[in-house]
Formats: sequence, C-alpha cells, structure tokens
Amino acid sequence: MKFCGACGEAVQLQTVLGDSVLRHVCGSCKTIHYVNPKLIVGCLPVYEGSVLLCKRAIEPALGLWTLPSGFMEIGESVEQGALRETWEEAHAEVEIVRLFSEYSLPHIGQVYLLFLARLKNLNFSAGQETLETRLYSKEEVPWDQIAFSAVRFALEKYFSDPSTITTHLGTFSK
Amino acid sequence: MKFCGACGEAVQLQTVLGDSVLRHVCGSCKTIHYVNPKLIVGCLPVYEGSVLLCKRAIEPALGLWTLPSGFMEIGESVEQGALRETWEEAHAEVEIVRLFSEYSLPHIGQVYLLFLARLKNLNFSAGQETLETRLYSKEEVPWDQIAFSAVRFALEKYFSDPSTITTHLGTFSK
Repeated sequence: MKFCGACGEAVQLQTVLGDSVLRHVCGSCKTIHYVNPKLIVGCLPVYEGSVLLCKRAIEPALGLWTLPSGFMEIGESVEQGALRETWEEAHAEVEIVRLFSEYSLPHIGQVYLLFLARLKNLNFSAGQETLETRLYSKEEVPWDQIAFSAVRFALEKYFSDPSTITTHLGTFSK
Repeated sequence: MKFCGACGEAVQLQTVLGDSVLRHVCGSCKTIHYVNPKLIVGCLPVYEGSVLLCKRAIEPALGLWTLPSGFMEIGESVEQGALRETWEEAHAEVEIVRLFSEYSLPHIGQVYLLFLARLKNLNFSAGQETLETRLYSKEEVPWDQIAFSAVRFALEKYFSDPSTITTHLGTFSK
C-alpha cells in the first residue's frame, strides 16, 4: 500500500498510539489503514465415508485437488460462505454437520474454516473454477496431488481420526 | 474506498469477470481491491466454573463487560492471536482447551473465534484497554452490561450447555 484509499495522498508505515504493529497511515487525512488476515471458508462434503474433492481449473495449484472453499465475503455468515463456495465450485448440495477444522497460515495472513457436511445427493458437477469433481474413499485420495496444506490437514484428520468431534486446530509450519 | 492504494488514482465499483460481487477496481492500474470480513479472536478464560470478563476502557461499548479478544494480525495463528489479546487486555495466562464458538456478524463483516481456555493462575489484571478484570460465576454475570452479541452468545452457551464439545455456531440477527 502506497496511497490512501480515502483521499489519494501518500501513506507511511508508522507506529500508532496503543498499538504494537506498524500501520499504513495517511500523511494528509490521517486515516489508519488496517490490514488483517483473510478467511477462506468451505466444506468437507462426505457421502458414505468418501469425500468430494474438486480438481482446480485456475491458479494457484491448477490441476491439483482441493475441498470446495474460497474467500468469505462481507454480508454472509461463515456457514453461508461455505455453502456458497460448495455450490459454486462443485454444484453440490450439502447439510453442515459441524465446524471440522480451523487452520492458520500466519506467513500469508490466511485462516481456513472448513465444515464437515453431508452430501444431500450425488448430483454434483464441476463449477466454473473446477475441472472435475469426484468422491474419494480413504484408499483412493490422491495424496501427492492435494492443492493446499489446509486441505491436506482436514483430509488427514477426517480419515485418521473420525471419532473426534471437537474442531481440529492446525497451523502451517515449513 | 475512493482511491487506489497501489497508484493513487480513482477507483470505481464494477463487475469483475467470474465474480458475483462488485469490487473496487482502479481505473488506471486495474488493481482489484478485495474487501473481506475481519476476524476477532479471543478466549473464554475459566477457573472453577467462573469466567474472566474485562470491563472496557475504550469505545465502542466503553464500561461494558467483554471477553478478552481483538482483531487478529497477519503473522500470527488464530490461537496466538487469542493468547495475545488475553494477555494484552487481562494480563491473564491461559491454556487453550478447544475452539468454543464461531459467531458471524454479516452486516459488519466480522467473525469471532473464541477459545475455551483454562486460567493458569489468578494473577490477572486490567490491561491498557481495560478498566477492571473479574471472575464471574453463572449467578453473577452482569447480563445487562455485556458489550457484544458474540460475547453474550459464548457466555450463554458456556453456562447453559457445558457438556457440548463441538464448536458452537452462531450468527447475529436483529
């Protein structure tokens, strides 16, 4: 960020009273521009123990498999965002069971919230950002072609620890 | 938002290909400025069935009681943010037990994630943004002086439904 979104003048990184993090502050109108992590919301849709995955049609991770998920929008709840992404990416109708995993990526300011969800029917199909949709059993999951660490975390927890009903907590580490 | 943070020229709200939400797009450098919900993270610190609350020293809700919580920062995990806020606002040392509640406020683009946490000791005290810290039992909670709906939601769930270990899901409605 170089310019103020409110008035168009230059911003500087500076200390703000009572705050431990440097902020972009406008030299003219004094607006403080806070930049915070973004939420990625989605579902782990299941049917008879298998999980619905989507092969990505867009970068990043084009051609790799993911759970239907995407950036949450203002004006929706976390659950509404998760259902919207599941419909947009996989045309899948699901019922949310519970919050399955919370996974942080501190270095890029992202947090994933993924819900365990029951597929209501098998009428799923690839959405605009998806090449292919498919149900995978534990034995079939393409572990070497999973798109994101947050997705891998959720899949590993689902297939290794099916009885746990508290939300799984994870953080990316290199 | 009226101006582009990247180049300082004027932005317009417009439709972006493959996107259902209007975005601020720069007329000059074409940068798309996404605005997404913010995460507020914190703890529900407990000791022998009582909950630690903080009387707010700042607006909004000055003088009302809240759980220690605040905006998550880039560079930290959700849990790290919750522990940091608990320290900053209540100088409280806690151990996270599990993710207790997820609460959405769609109309203002906020999501609260609050962790059930055990107080390690009783050496808590008011931080810079707090007038007073106090443990409240179920009978003592000042229900008519609770700062935010997300805090009220978590307190109600904690005192009414102590055996549930799945994360409680809530959404603000007027």
